[in-house]
Amino acid sequence: MKKINNKLPSGNYNIFIGKNILSKLTKEIEHLNLHKNVLFIIDRNVNKYYYKYIFDNIKAKFNKSDSIIINSNELEKRIASAEKIYSQLIQKKYGRDTLLIAIGGGIVGDIAGFVAATYMRGIQYVQIPTTLLAAVDSSVGGKTGVNFGDAKNIVGCFYQPKLVLIDTHFFKTLNQSEIICGMGEVVKYAFLSDVNFYNYLNLNLNKILKLEPNVIEKVIYESIKFKCSVVMQDEREDGLRKILNLGHTFAHALEIAQKYKIKHGQAVIVGIVCSLFLSNRIGYINKENLNLYLKFLNIFKSKIKLKNLSTDEMYKIMLKDKKNRNGKIKFVLPIEIGKIFIDAECSVSLIIDSISESIKFFVNK
Amino acid sequence: MKKINNKLPSGNYNIFIGKNILSKLTKEIEHLNLHKNVLFIIDRNVNKYYYKYIFDNIKAKFNKSDSIIINSNELEKRIASAEKIYSQLIQKKYGRDTLLIAIGGGIVGDIAGFVAATYMRGIQYVQIPTTLLAAVDSSVGGKTGVNFGDAKNIVGCFYQPKLVLIDTHFFKTLNQSEIICGMGEVVKYAFLSDVNFYNYLNLNLNKILKLEPNVIEKVIYESIKFKCSVVMQDEREDGLRKILNLGHTFAHALEIAQKYKIKHGQAVIVGIVCSLFLSNRIGYINKENLNLYLKFLNIFKSKIKLKNLSTDEMYKIMLKDKKNRNGKIKFVLPIEIGKIFIDAECSVSLIIDSISESIKFFVNK
Repeated sequence: MKKINNKLPSGNYNIFIGKNILSKLTKEIEHLNLHKNVLFIIDRNVNKYYYKYIFDNIKAKFNKSDSIIINSNELEKRIASAEKIYSQLIQKKYGRDTLLIAIGGGIVGDIAGFVAATYMRGIQYVQIPTTLLAAVDSSVGGKTGVNFGDAKNIVGCFYQPKLVLIDTHFFKTLNQSEIICGMGEVVKYAFLSDVNFYNYLNLNLNKILKLEPNVIEKVIYESIKFKCSVVMQDEREDGLRKILNLGHTFAHALEIAQKYKIKHGQAVIVGIVCSLFLSNRIGYINKENLNLYLKFLNIFKSKIKLKNLSTDEMYKIMLKDKKNRNGKIKFVLPIEIGKIFIDAECSVSLIIDSISESIKFFVNK
Repeated sequence: MKKINNKLPSGNYNIFIGKNILSKLTKEIEHLNLHKNVLFIIDRNVNKYYYKYIFDNIKAKFNKSDSIIINSNELEKRIASAEKIYSQLIQKKYGRDTLLIAIGGGIVGDIAGFVAATYMRGIQYVQIPTTLLAAVDSSVGGKTGVNFGDAKNIVGCFYQPKLVLIDTHFFKTLNQSEIICGMGEVVKYAFLSDVNFYNYLNLNLNKILKLEPNVIEKVIYESIKFKCSVVMQDEREDGLRKILNLGHTFAHALEIAQKYKIKHGQAVIVGIVCSLFLSNRIGYINKENLNLYLKFLNIFKSKIKLKNLSTDEMYKIMLKDKKNRNGKIKFVLPIEIGKIFIDAECSVSLIIDSISESIKFFVNK
């Protein structure tokens, strides 16, 4: 088992990573003296496969413990889902001394975190991410929120959990496309952090895709350690934290353009490829490095499908992104491994060209 | 003009109090280097009477400045109203660099503050309270929120404004019942703070009801100064801040029982009277002091009407209050001026008796 302490201006908390560590949950609730009025918010599939595993591992004597089962897809990540949870909390008389425990992927965590941030002006919550994507990304950093209209995550708060517990036992039912999803963010950290991690990934990509326990634990640990180091310096995304958006401006637009039929992590990989092409066009990345990086990403070609994608439509959606409200799109672009340019502005034609080249990359298998 | 600096763990900001000081708004926006993409959220009545005054006094060159007009009543203080504002913000392409300016009573301020706390995980906002109640209470302290189902303010955040500007020029259109409303909270501070302020109020109640400028400015100043001193020590209401709920457990239930036909501040006065009776029954306040305090509150008898109030119904609603989720109602009770008991628990019969006595007090004019 590995442990990271995420020290933030708004408080600090531990992140545990390991296999079959769910029993730590109740020990930590005792140890941290968290509230004993518990509402579990659980993903429908996770509940189906792991109901027994979850409840066999919970030995704590709670005063209350109800559960809400959530269908997790982007279309349900809306205020209406938060309202269902508020109703349940009110109906079952949960007070300010409530502990929400989110067990599921990023959508469950984002909705539960938003409810925790806003119910009675803030109650405690714990994140138990059950997907690789949620483990390396959304469960850490305190970004909570829901979509509104076409805009992703536009209603939300910065609100930190009291504990994050990553039990890789939950990963055994992940299918290949869900693993690829998580890899989107992992690949992002490869570009953001350093050559060591990039090389480690380059050597072990196949083992990761097979979820080999020691490798996956190290990958999650390194990814989160890097993310925490960034969030620690810039909790509310006023500057440095923006680098974590590498590939995401493209990815968000792609998800909307493909009506969420492409998964977030896959969209991030496409987004990173777009960023590489754009960075090359602007002159930040030379041709040689571009080819090396594309080769590193080759393994994902066969695993991502883009359907009827219009570059113009994608560009229009990017203009609507919450980060680009004043008509200018700002990009995070890689220069080389560990060296990143923030707030790059580019001409419309370069942006559209780099989307086209990226589509070609994924279409020409 | 008077000025208070509210120093809080989550940041500090100034509160200005005076007559015809609205022109300070644009100077302070420059001075504090706040964002220039402005969305005004204005109460419908305030907009009707003060449109010219507001916009004559705004000399700043904003990049954007749209307005949303809000109907302010408790029934509109819901997530749906926040959603209307989100829609407008998205449609008009407001980004993270947005400044919301709320001009209105407590409802406008609470909704606008909640939107500011949750749009793109937090944008800047300024409070310009236009009622005595909002000035002495909700505009200061960072409590934002909306009602959900029957539960008041149950969805919200702690989120502080960048500036509070109290221009008593807006008070000239307040009717008597709205002044009484504000007095509810002022009277509360009289019991909470000290004998000096209590005596000052006792001597000047008539002048306050006539909104005599120097008197009203001092009353607002003293009330806010006291509130700030409490919030400073306990921003998130973990302990001391609870004293600010004096009278409010009764008041919230009363408002629901009367279907919001009684105003909040009036309900607080009734709630304080209930607390005085309850405190006397428990033995905290002696008979002599009880009579003195009731005499001080005599002036409000003729100004508050209670219609078809069932004590049992009120008790049932109190059990549903967000502060009383585990079946126990906790009260803030006055012992003497400046001396308060927090988290008092009482038998059902004493609670119901004190409601009955309070009803009698207001019915026997």
